[in-house]
Amino acid sequence: MKCRVCGKQANIRLPQYNTALCKDDFIGFFEKRVLATINKYGLMGAEDKTLVAISGGKDSLSLWHLLGRLGIPADGIYIDLGIKDYSAISFDKARSAADMLRRKLYSFSISDAFAKGIKDLSAIMKRPACSLCGMIKRYVMNRACIEHGYSVLATGHNLDDEASALLGNLLHWKEEYLWKKGVALEAEGGHLAKKVKPLFLCSEKETAAYAVMSGIDYVYDECPYSKGAKTLTYKALLNRVEEGSPATKLAFMKGYLKRTRQDEADGEKGQKSLCSGCGYPSFGEECTFCRLVDRFGIGRSLSFRIYSPEPS
Amino acid sequence: MKCRVCGKQANIRLPQYNTALCKDDFIGFFEKRVLATINKYGLMGAEDKTLVAISGGKDSLSLWHLLGRLGIPADGIYIDLGIKDYSAISFDKARSAADMLRRKLYSFSISDAFAKGIKDLSAIMKRPACSLCGMIKRYVMNRACIEHGYSVLATGHNLDDEASALLGNLLHWKEEYLWKKGVALEAEGGHLAKKVKPLFLCSEKETAAYAVMSGIDYVYDECPYSKGAKTLTYKALLNRVEEGSPATKLAFMKGYLKRTRQDEADGEKGQKSLCSGCGYPSFGEECTFCRLVDRFGIGRSLSFRIYSPEPS
Repeated sequence: MKCRVCGKQANIRLPQYNTALCKDDFIGFFEKRVLATINKYGLMGAEDKTLVAISGGKDSLSLWHLLGRLGIPADGIYIDLGIKDYSAISFDKARSAADMLRRKLYSFSISDAFAKGIKDLSAIMKRPACSLCGMIKRYVMNRACIEHGYSVLATGHNLDDEASALLGNLLHWKEEYLWKKGVALEAEGGHLAKKVKPLFLCSEKETAAYAVMSGIDYVYDECPYSKGAKTLTYKALLNRVEEGSPATKLAFMKGYLKRTRQDEADGEKGQKSLCSGCGYPSFGEECTFCRLVDRFGIGRSLSFRIYSPEPS
Repeated sequence: MKCRVCGKQANIRLPQYNTALCKDDFIGFFEKRVLATINKYGLMGAEDKTLVAISGGKDSLSLWHLLGRLGIPADGIYIDLGIKDYSAISFDKARSAADMLRRKLYSFSISDAFAKGIKDLSAIMKRPACSLCGMIKRYVMNRACIEHGYSVLATGHNLDDEASALLGNLLHWKEEYLWKKGVALEAEGGHLAKKVKPLFLCSEKETAAYAVMSGIDYVYDECPYSKGAKTLTYKALLNRVEEGSPATKLAFMKGYLKRTRQDEADGEKGQKSLCSGCGYPSFGEECTFCRLVDRFGIGRSLSFRIYSPEPS
């Protein structure tokens, strides 16, 4: 198998693009495609200050690294979930990336704030760990953006994440989520930072290959609490379809994006009020995060640690 | 495992309804559910004359048998695709059912009409066999209804057929088909018979169990040309999801039906003209069936054989 660009031995086959590429040409191809997504969907511009949500996995670290290579300055934020070794190793990887990129890394520790890890919190709040974790991450990262002057929060969600979530929402026709996914979610009046997903059209296999080929040191293991998650079943099933019909996942998400843009044009918007506790948008009188904080009788101010690599 | 109704040994587990039933109670349960679908969606009434599309497989023969048991008189129509043994065996099963039910069976033979089987026709017309077969069946069965005075055409499409087709249409966002499926498609002014799918909410496993438990003699093999069909992959995938989350297929199709009814209420209708050849609805000037007939230089009249069982 030869590289379609230079004719050397190819390192990766990309049936969805009907091509095969060597390491260097794949890295160039991948970066060009992400840049195209950034430009096409207006994800971030020269005036923006970007914060990248870092988990320590291949997607978020690839994204941070890639933004650096594209000359888009971005700091990182890491949420420590208090999952013993897994959280410690993940934070190490995040810090090494900060060192390499010479960018600031904010961190927020759930164990420090609540004196509990995510698993115990989940039991106390009678809410699945994944759902609680998602809520806390969204809230804390958004507040970090607003409080520290970042206009854009970039996450590493990839094509497989988005396609499997969409499949789940379609199978159960979850109207409340169904048409709300997108490559970008605009900011809202000083309360919600703009959220963007530059890897939206890159498959998990591509982001893993990019991480490996770029020498990025990331956590290989999935979060220990994700075992048995339905999204993993959906991912496996979509990959089975993809094997028989390459580019199905891309067609699925591109067709979806076309429809959501139509829906946006139709002017559909949910009504949100502001939380009586923190003043941030909330569907109820008090937002879920404030309810959590109240439950533990702790203050509403968030303390971030900031890791700044030594100047070289 | 005990039957939830009578406490005897259960013969079938139905996790999607969180129940298990013995043979007799399952037959009663299945028939009651199909009757509920017929009534809820107004599929057929006392004034209707119904024709059932018979392939010789478990779904169509179960449907024919069940309508008899529910006291809904219905004749059958069988299309002989000219697939050697498969077609001959299928026709035998259809005729045995007609004998048992003492109902008329119409048949139309593709080999007689075109002097070719579906495979050769497919090669000549440069169109996949399944797509050509579907077109011919839809056209011929509809014309049989109109010409012989049947107001309703009932087909044996089951939950798995519908869910897998919908999944395929969603993965590729096929707008032209996406919102057009339903339990019933109304008749149109003397040209299109009403089409109904009484088994729409019954899984393939249920229709197979009903056929076996009712002693219906049906063709076990799938059509030899269906091998490798994507719908089979989609069916397998949905069954994997169903294993982990029973009733997902039902929720998927019920949620879909709710949405299509909304779309209907929004008053969306396609514009169709009438075919210059046969006078039936067509998207182009001439309908696909007439183009096929022209290609072979044969007449436009359809000759059906009618098999009428001896009165007992």
